[in-house]
Amino acid sequence: MPKFASENRLIQLLRDRYSINVPLIKKGIGDDAAVIRPKHAGEYLLITTDMLLEGIDFRREWTDPRRLGFKSVAVNMSDLAAMGAKPLFFTVSLAIPSGISRRWIMDFYDGMAEPDSNKGAYLIGGDLSRSENGIMISITALGESLNRKVLYRSGGKAGDILYVTGVLGRSAAGLKLLQDGCLHPKSRSRQEAIRAHQRPEPRCETGIWLAQSGLVHCMIDLSDGVSTDLPRMCAASGTGAEIFRNDLPIFKEAREWECDPVELALHGGEDFELLFAVPKSKSRLLENRYPSKYPEIKRIGRLTPDSGKIWITEPGNKRLRLMDLGYDHFRLQS
Amino acid sequence: MPKFASENRLIQLLRDRYSINVPLIKKGIGDDAAVIRPKHAGEYLLITTDMLLEGIDFRREWTDPRRLGFKSVAVNMSDLAAMGAKPLFFTVSLAIPSGISRRWIMDFYDGMAEPDSNKGAYLIGGDLSRSENGIMISITALGESLNRKVLYRSGGKAGDILYVTGVLGRSAAGLKLLQDGCLHPKSRSRQEAIRAHQRPEPRCETGIWLAQSGLVHCMIDLSDGVSTDLPRMCAASGTGAEIFRNDLPIFKEAREWECDPVELALHGGEDFELLFAVPKSKSRLLENRYPSKYPEIKRIGRLTPDSGKIWITEPGNKRLRLMDLGYDHFRLQS
Repeated sequence: MPKFASENRLIQLLRDRYSINVPLIKKGIGDDAAVIRPKHAGEYLLITTDMLLEGIDFRREWTDPRRLGFKSVAVNMSDLAAMGAKPLFFTVSLAIPSGISRRWIMDFYDGMAEPDSNKGAYLIGGDLSRSENGIMISITALGESLNRKVLYRSGGKAGDILYVTGVLGRSAAGLKLLQDGCLHPKSRSRQEAIRAHQRPEPRCETGIWLAQSGLVHCMIDLSDGVSTDLPRMCAASGTGAEIFRNDLPIFKEAREWECDPVELALHGGEDFELLFAVPKSKSRLLENRYPSKYPEIKRIGRLTPDSGKIWITEPGNKRLRLMDLGYDHFRLQS
Repeated sequence: MPKFASENRLIQLLRDRYSINVPLIKKGIGDDAAVIRPKHAGEYLLITTDMLLEGIDFRREWTDPRRLGFKSVAVNMSDLAAMGAKPLFFTVSLAIPSGISRRWIMDFYDGMAEPDSNKGAYLIGGDLSRSENGIMISITALGESLNRKVLYRSGGKAGDILYVTGVLGRSAAGLKLLQDGCLHPKSRSRQEAIRAHQRPEPRCETGIWLAQSGLVHCMIDLSDGVSTDLPRMCAASGTGAEIFRNDLPIFKEAREWECDPVELALHGGEDFELLFAVPKSKSRLLENRYPSKYPEIKRIGRLTPDSGKIWITEPGNKRLRLMDLGYDHFRLQS
């Protein structure tokens, strides 16, 4: 008997049990960030938290403290990006086993201080602990809305066009190299893949622009893969979706190391790109107005009326159900 | 060679390196909570975060999920109490090893939902992860000031009278019982000690009253013990201190299980009582006005001009330097 079916199911249980309807909380459990309306404040405050554990989320031998600090903060900022919020602050809780030097710790914090990681947010506090079991990092990030415009996972409508920013599957291709022991490759494509995995860039400016544009119905960041995050958006919006296989912005170079770029694009996690839905009538306008300085956006499909059903359409119009094979902490337990 | 001398020293290093002077941040790294001034907001926002790790901060066999949830949130609320802030929200990151049941998780969250633990704050989000190494809990709590009155560790002046709330050393006495395998004692005093360890009550109402009174110079919560937390207050205030051994509100009953109540009161952690300093001229007024419904307060000493020096005065006026023997995550590494 399964202990619990999935991370999604567990979060749903918690939401059903602990959600509270008070004016102060605009959005509680269940989106990329919680949205708070502080008394007398002009803007909403957004709060998100993410944990990174050695052995689960990273391995010390595949990274260095600076890159680890960079990524730990970046993945939290990506949650703010997904709501269109401006990063303001973050706190860091760090548990370290004996044998970690002061130099290691300082390098770790220096990585978090990089502007490409924290996107202008300030470190304001945290907690330090000794650990008997590897490094544990827990970060909480706070951001604010601009003009009270925030995007949720919900709000998508059947017929909306689905877009993603950037390239999908590149981070997973980099992880594959590290798993294969290829830590310092010479080829540019391999370096690019590893960099995408180690130093993901949160799409904060893009997320803010999309939220401010008024042309987007809903948004989520791709932390666990399209096949896991798209169903989350559909569940929140009460829609299904159809993805066109040939339209995915894949990382072709992954073929060089025997990976299927389409599989990586669908199921690979940690791209930290944005997935968003735009009403069909406004999609041209959005494409025309979208600033060229931001990462390229690409149509990859559309939202459909059949709630919860996610299809992938192959060339020749063959339709298959998309299996949710993205990252789920608890899948193996079910 | 020491890697780092102590937790205090490490936090000081981080503060020196990453503190930033911007109007938005009223207080960053280095107090019980960070203090933020959101744009247009009438009140300050306070943020604190605390981690609890299995094997370091708790043992599964010494508690149950409900009590663990209760304590995890309570210790964060105690940090808000120490600033005089009203608890508003909290997020919970939880990493769990395989073998933990859904029932366990629900009981854990039910403990966090108890009003005596969360003091009215709402759960608004979090992160869930699998763990290969025991249970890890990281909580971030947010609160707000009332009338912009917040108390810091700093602000104490030589001559101020030092007070504490409640009884000191009771939680450490309870921990001793658990360590000795006495998990379900029959005697009332033993039950009381274990309860103090497992279900500490954050002094939020008292902290708010003290901050609002306008009679208090500085405050800190006793999470690591008087001998560790008082030097933190003195360092922030630029003072020394003198404690009168006979004035400590000790937990006498601990003698029944061969503990020295004075040692526990000085060096035992996790009492989560409040330690605060009041100008001598206002101490009578404070004592007269202090509401009887709150935990009793007791004078235990005074702040002195000799910066950083902490004395304990024994009966017969013998003065000894107080050794910092409270809880420090990194002491063993130095």
